[in-house]
Amino acid sequence: MELIGFVAAILTTAAFLPQVYKTWKTKDVSGLSLLMLIIFFIGIIGWLVYGFLKHSPSMIFANSITLISSALLIFFKIKYRK
Amino acid sequence: MELIGFVAAILTTAAFLPQVYKTWKTKDVSGLSLLMLIIFFIGIIGWLVYGFLKHSPSMIFANSITLISSALLIFFKIKYRK
Repeated sequence: MELIGFVAAILTTAAFLPQVYKTWKTKDVSGLSLLMLIIFFIGIIGWLVYGFLKHSPSMIFANSITLISSALLIFFKIKYRK
Repeated sequence: MELIGFVAAILTTAAFLPQVYKTWKTKDVSGLSLLMLIIFFIGIIGWLVYGFLKHSPSMIFANSITLISSALLIFFKIKYRK
């Protein structure tokens, strides 16, 4: 069961990382909404807590990485916005 | 416990929907990678299966909506790409 979770975790986080890289390289944050990033960030904290409560290693793994990724996007958005 | 999951589900899906709406309105799919969307889509299918195996209503709810959202983005990407 955890194998399916980990495959899902790797696929969804792998799809998210190029966005972070692209934003870092291009400094183009016009398409990103700060409010949406913050809502997403709080949501990921919720999933992380839920992952702990469900004793789900794959959820804890995936949401930890996504939490860092979305924190970076918030940082870039604030730093590079006009 | 499911309350935390549902709050997380609502927050993360709510943050994703404006992206779908924005892409639909602007038809600007240049910032989206088809490969990444497909990887993400497969990952969400994995999370959905995992949610069923974990008997998690909030994961099933969140990933069903995200699955539809990402399917729409793939459709827009194919339809509007140059």
